Amino acid sequence: MFTTNAFAAPAEGAPLGATTITRREVGPQDVLIDVAYCGICHTDIHTVRGEWGPRPFPLVPGHEIIGTVAAVGADVSRFSPGERVGVGCMVRSCGECGSCRAGQEQDCPAMVGTYGGIDADGSVTQGGYAGKIVVGEDFVLRIPDALDPAGAAPLLCAGITVYSPLRRYGAGPGTKVAVVGLGGLGHIGVKLAVAMGAEVTVLSRTLKKSEDGLRMGAAHYHATSDPRVLAGLAGQFDLMISTLSAPPDLPTLLSLLAPGGTMVNVGIPPEPLALPAFSLIMGRKTLAGSLFGGIAETQEMLDFCAAHHITADIEVIAPDTVNTAYERVLDSDVRYRFVIDTTTLS
Amino acid sequence: MFTTNAFAAPAEGAPLGATTITRREVGPQDVLIDVAYCGICHTDIHTVRGEWGPRPFPLVPGHEIIGTVAAVGADVSRFSPGERVGVGCMVRSCGECGSCRAGQEQDCPAMVGTYGGIDADGSVTQGGYAGKIVVGEDFVLRIPDALDPAGAAPLLCAGITVYSPLRRYGAGPGTKVAVVGLGGLGHIGVKLAVAMGAEVTVLSRTLKKSEDGLRMGAAHYHATSDPRVLAGLAGQFDLMISTLSAPPDLPTLLSLLAPGGTMVNVGIPPEPLALPAFSLIMGRKTLAGSLFGGIAETQEMLDFCAAHHITADIEVIAPDTVNTAYERVLDSDVRYRFVIDTTTLS
Repeated sequence: MFTTNAFAAPAEGAPLGATTITRREVGPQDVLIDVAYCGICHTDIHTVRGEWGPRPFPLVPGHEIIGTVAAVGADVSRFSPGERVGVGCMVRSCGECGSCRAGQEQDCPAMVGTYGGIDADGSVTQGGYAGKIVVGEDFVLRIPDALDPAGAAPLLCAGITVYSPLRRYGAGPGTKVAVVGLGGLGHIGVKLAVAMGAEVTVLSRTLKKSEDGLRMGAAHYHATSDPRVLAGLAGQFDLMISTLSAPPDLPTLLSLLAPGGTMVNVGIPPEPLALPAFSLIMGRKTLAGSLFGGIAETQEMLDFCAAHHITADIEVIAPDTVNTAYERVLDSDVRYRFVIDTTTLS
Repeated sequence: MFTTNAFAAPAEGAPLGATTITRREVGPQDVLIDVAYCGICHTDIHTVRGEWGPRPFPLVPGHEIIGTVAAVGADVSRFSPGERVGVGCMVRSCGECGSCRAGQEQDCPAMVGTYGGIDADGSVTQGGYAGKIVVGEDFVLRIPDALDPAGAAPLLCAGITVYSPLRRYGAGPGTKVAVVGLGGLGHIGVKLAVAMGAEVTVLSRTLKKSEDGLRMGAAHYHATSDPRVLAGLAGQFDLMISTLSAPPDLPTLLSLLAPGGTMVNVGIPPEPLALPAFSLIMGRKTLAGSLFGGIAETQEMLDFCAAHHITADIEVIAPDTVNTAYERVLDSDVRYRFVIDTTTLS
C-alpha cells in the first residue's frame, strides 16, 4: 500500500476536497500510472450526489484517466514505463464469462467500475481525480501519440459511449445520423459520425451552439424547440443518438426515424422515459441502450480518433476548482468537457 | 359496384350488426374473393371502440381473411378462380417508395389498411366480416392447401406479427426465446419459434395455460406473478416477444434479457410504457416495435406454417355471435383466437 493525493467527496452530496488515499502495491499484472489528466463525466456528478443509488464514501470520482506508466508488475508484457496510457470506466472483470470472452467486459456480472466498485481484495475502487492509480494491464489502454493527452481523456468514457453504438448500428457513408444534444457526449458523437462518413444532423434545444456543430462537421443543425422544423424532419434518420440528461420526448424523436431505424439512448435521466407503444411499432423502430464499450473496442476507438485527429473540445482546470466545474456542468456551461490537470497531485 | 352482406359497427362503441355494404367492381388488377373465414383480432375491438383514435363509421372490421377466388380482372396473372387465398392487414401501398421497394409495404406512408383506410377512389375500406371482398392482386396471399383454412386465418395478422420479429432478430437453433403472454399472438409465436428451432419459454401471469404452452412445444413455462421465479431467469433470453395488451413491466422483463438481447413489443396498451433508461443501458439491450410484415414475408410465413403444420388454435363462431366473442376476448376467455365462419354471408 502507498498513498497518493486525490480529490474526494467525503459524503453523499458534499463538496469534493483534497485528501490522500491508499492504493495497492503494484502486483505482477498491474500497471502503476502517474495520472496527468482526468475528465469530468456527468456520471461523476450523479454518483457523488447519490442520484444513482447509495455509494461508499469518501469517494474519488473519475473514469476518463490519461497518464504515463510509472512502473509495471513482473508479468506485464504489453506496457513499459514512460508510455502514455489511459483507463476508462472499468478496472476488472471475471475474464471467463460469455461477455468477457466476447470482448464485452462491460456486461460481465463481475465487472468492477473504476470508482465506487468492490475490487477483488474487497476494497472500494477509487478513481482518477488522483496523482497515481494502479490498474491491471488488461484494463489499460494505449493512448496514441497523435492524440493531445488532455483532449483524449473524455474519449475514455464519452468517446466510447457514442463510438460503440455508432459502429454497432452502421453509421457510415450513405447513412443519415442525428445526434440529439450537443454536450460532452454529443460533440464527440458528431465528430465520430462525421469521420465514419455519415451525414450528420445535430438536434439541439436551441441554435446557440450551431456554429460549433457545423465546425465539427455536422451537415445540418436544427432547434428541437421549433415544432415546424421537427415536422419537416419526419422519417429522415437511419440512426439517432440521444445524449440528453433530461428525459427525451420519445414520441417526437422517434417520429424522425426512417422505417426500421434505431434510436440509441445513452443519457440517463432519473425518471423513467414515457414510451407510447405505437412510437416503435409504426415503422418497426428500435430503441436501444448502450453502456460504454469493451476494452478492445475502446482501443479501436482511440486508434480511430488518432487516425482522424479527433479529441474532445475541453477546458482544463485545476483540481481545486472541481466543485465549480460540477456546477457549470449542471448549468450546461462548458464547451464541451472539463478535464482536470492532475499533475499537481502526483 | 355490387353489394355483399357484412357485420358492421354502426358507430363508435356500438355493437356490431348485420348490414349490406357495397364493393367496387373487379378492376383489371383486382381479385374478387368469396370470404370463408375471418379471424377476430384485438385490433378490431380497439378500432370499433375508438381506442386508437377516431375512425369512420359504419365500419366492417376484419383483416384475417381467408377465402376462394371467385373472379379475377383482365390483368391478373397470379390467381385463378377457385384458388384459396388470403388477405391480411393492408390492401394497397404506393409501390414506389423505399419501403415498398424493400418489400416493407407496411411502412409505406400511403399504405391503406384493410378496413377504416381511405382507398384510392376516396372510399373507406371495409374488412372481412363480409361475404365478398375485392382486393388488388399484389395484396392477395396464396394459402397453401396443407393449411386448415379456418386455422390459417389468424396467421394473416397475428402470425406475421410474431413471425417477422422472430426472423429479424434471429430466433433459431441455439437461441433462447421468451414469449410473454399466451394469447392470440403469443400461442402462434410459441409454435413459430419452436419450429424455427429456438428453445422457447412462455412467461404468463399464471400457470393456468401451462399444459397448452408445453403442448405447443415450449420447453419452459413460468408464472410472471412469482418474483422468485423471475429472479432466477435474469439474463437468460436472447429474444423476448411481449404480446401483452396491458402495459408490460419493462424493467422486470428487460432484466431477463441476456447482454445485447432484444425485446420486441407487439402489444399496444393505450398508456405509454414506463421505461427506466438504465433498463436498456445496462447490458446494451434493445426494445423494438414491429408492425405485421410485408407481403413477401407474409407469403414466406404462410409457406413456413404449411411446411411445419402450424395453424392457430381457434374457436369458429357464427357472425351473429361476434359481440359476445368481443366480450370474451376482453375477458381472455378464448383459446386462442375466434374465427368467424362468413360463408353464411356470401
